[in-house]
Amino acid sequence: MINTSCLSPLPFTQVMMAARIVSLENCLEKHIPPEELQEVKRILYGKPASPLNLPEEAVKFAQSHDFELAGYKIEAAPEQLRQPRIVRIGAVQNKIVAPTNAPIAKQREALHGRIKDIVDSGALCGVNVMCFQECWTMPFAFCTREKLPWTEFAESATDGPTVKLCQELAEQHNMVIISPILERDVDHREILWNTSVVISNTGDIIGKTRKNHIPRVGDFNESTYYMEGNMGHPVFQTQFGRIGISICYSRHHPLNWLMFGINGAEIVFNPSATVGALSEPMWPIEARNAAIANSYFTVAINRVGTESFEHEFTSGDGKPAHKDFGEFYGSSYVAAPDGSRTPGLSRTRDGLLVTEVDLNLCRQIKDKWGFPMTSRLDMYANLLTDAVQHDYKPLVVNQEQK
Amino acid sequence: MINTSCLSPLPFTQVMMAARIVSLENCLEKHIPPEELQEVKRILYGKPASPLNLPEEAVKFAQSHDFELAGYKIEAAPEQLRQPRIVRIGAVQNKIVAPTNAPIAKQREALHGRIKDIVDSGALCGVNVMCFQECWTMPFAFCTREKLPWTEFAESATDGPTVKLCQELAEQHNMVIISPILERDVDHREILWNTSVVISNTGDIIGKTRKNHIPRVGDFNESTYYMEGNMGHPVFQTQFGRIGISICYSRHHPLNWLMFGINGAEIVFNPSATVGALSEPMWPIEARNAAIANSYFTVAINRVGTESFEHEFTSGDGKPAHKDFGEFYGSSYVAAPDGSRTPGLSRTRDGLLVTEVDLNLCRQIKDKWGFPMTSRLDMYANLLTDAVQHDYKPLVVNQEQK
Repeated sequence: MINTSCLSPLPFTQVMMAARIVSLENCLEKHIPPEELQEVKRILYGKPASPLNLPEEAVKFAQSHDFELAGYKIEAAPEQLRQPRIVRIGAVQNKIVAPTNAPIAKQREALHGRIKDIVDSGALCGVNVMCFQECWTMPFAFCTREKLPWTEFAESATDGPTVKLCQELAEQHNMVIISPILERDVDHREILWNTSVVISNTGDIIGKTRKNHIPRVGDFNESTYYMEGNMGHPVFQTQFGRIGISICYSRHHPLNWLMFGINGAEIVFNPSATVGALSEPMWPIEARNAAIANSYFTVAINRVGTESFEHEFTSGDGKPAHKDFGEFYGSSYVAAPDGSRTPGLSRTRDGLLVTEVDLNLCRQIKDKWGFPMTSRLDMYANLLTDAVQHDYKPLVVNQEQK
Repeated sequence: MINTSCLSPLPFTQVMMAARIVSLENCLEKHIPPEELQEVKRILYGKPASPLNLPEEAVKFAQSHDFELAGYKIEAAPEQLRQPRIVRIGAVQNKIVAPTNAPIAKQREALHGRIKDIVDSGALCGVNVMCFQECWTMPFAFCTREKLPWTEFAESATDGPTVKLCQELAEQHNMVIISPILERDVDHREILWNTSVVISNTGDIIGKTRKNHIPRVGDFNESTYYMEGNMGHPVFQTQFGRIGISICYSRHHPLNWLMFGINGAEIVFNPSATVGALSEPMWPIEARNAAIANSYFTVAINRVGTESFEHEFTSGDGKPAHKDFGEFYGSSYVAAPDGSRTPGLSRTRDGLLVTEVDLNLCRQIKDKWGFPMTSRLDMYANLLTDAVQHDYKPLVVNQEQK
């Protein structure tokens, strides 16, 4: 018998033979007997993240404001010379609020309001570092290839309205905020960038970073709006640890993750916007692999919902023109350097994932597994230097002719 | 109610509260209703690998010889100018046969016999490229730190008894064979290497490759036996595509996987020996991430069973001395460049996984996702060249002091 509580009706844009799973974890929990469930979870997710008790007030607030609130804890061994470095990470996933044909100012205002609510709830939960989804102030309109009105969402990373809002929230709640926006760079001929602004818990801007790898896949027509980032792989020293931000499609590039590790990151956020049919089976793999390979925490954040646009567009994939991008499947999660991970947020609902981690785990795992020590980086620096030459000859061994 | 057919008794070396899962996939199939199972599998495994019909004779042979035989098919789109390049990949996982205190020659002979049987069955299934597990001719005795008798398993990669056997089998069955052994390098002061020999379907040796990254983790005391490989990341041109071999612990290093991609690999094998408590949650992540990131097929192979040794040893992890390494959990699988994968072989039984793939999928996925094109390798060559300098200063952004 099917427990219907993990099913929901299909959106009108999708015709699928299969049932709709609101959350993979819920589905496993409904059906697999407890004796086996424990092993299934260990195989899939590693050492279990313990549940984190969250304040009643925050739980009620989330219920009344219709978003999921989930909390987990990932611990480290005690050390003699270092105190535990406990940090609560907040990851936000959400739908757009106003329709895409509402006035730009109204769409942004509605999202500002929604995020303000979720941040308030995160503050009640003691979140220290909060990250929103990619280009969170707007629909992910790059699929349309239209410039106006969408480029009007772009704003200054120094004094735009969204930075100002985040500065207020950060100072008010003593919380580091990572705010991924579409940036208008007025100092460089007004070009656009896909940028994340990092705001200190004092309300000051620590800096910004830009998306290093830009997709040209299906409806992801972003390369017609902005170019590959020119700021490298900065790691931001905050009061709550050293953080990096690898935006969306950059997660497909292991070297991008590696450089954040080399620069000393302890948490790397991956604010994203990605849709089901295209990338969902890769989603649990890539950010988690990065956590394992680089001995840091990763925070994978994806938006939810289906965004419809007024004018139809095509993807160059032989499919008919359409007005939506497909469904963003949420499923935001945190992965740890020991290969464990939290369950994912819902595939369909707005949500806030609060994960308490002990940053000491990063160095403990580096020492245990020894990946940095055994990485032979000098060899790879030489190999890559050779490989990028236009006349590089791959090392191919052929069978000797007799 | 628990369906007991996916449970088996715990080995005496393990005390666990949880039930024992013989195969994750079996367990999901037993308990999750079909309507939801389809979606669960899509989320976990991507586009489903179709079952591959295997000859009745091979199926019966596997049953009577007590090993699992599983077959899947991963297809690609038809092209106009290239014919499909269909290859059947064989992945073998097995227990040792004779006890570890039997004479060395007897232990090796028993394993030779077992593998010969499994290869015969693979030949019936039309396997074109077959790979065995890491150091397949011996128990994984490096945990003991004892030199004799274990180093007696080392043999020449040119004319040792194992190479000779594999040459016979390869020629007999028109099958490329990848044979991972402990190598004795008589031309270089008799040192040892962890090596894979690649034998053409004509029976000739095409070449060999060595393990590039050596662990110092728990009972994995391999660095006291052999050093990091000195042969780079060769890709072997065979009649059935271009193949690379990344041995065991090297799978934790994304740059190692990358170099096989840069050298043009279409299939990269990862013959391994790894145990449950340590690495199992990473197992489904790393080789699959490599397939995604590098647009090639990966074949993750792990041994099965628990190997006990005469003398106790310690792991330097504060645990009491013990005589076994823990249980090798099998779970061998194939991952595809599109992010999909086959189910895993059993966690406990010997097995042969036959996967029919169309190598054309590699280039199709490179063109679709564009990872090689968007990889910015020149930037990373420069960044790594800087990063390996002893006085490298990580790019850390601090908050400006007011």
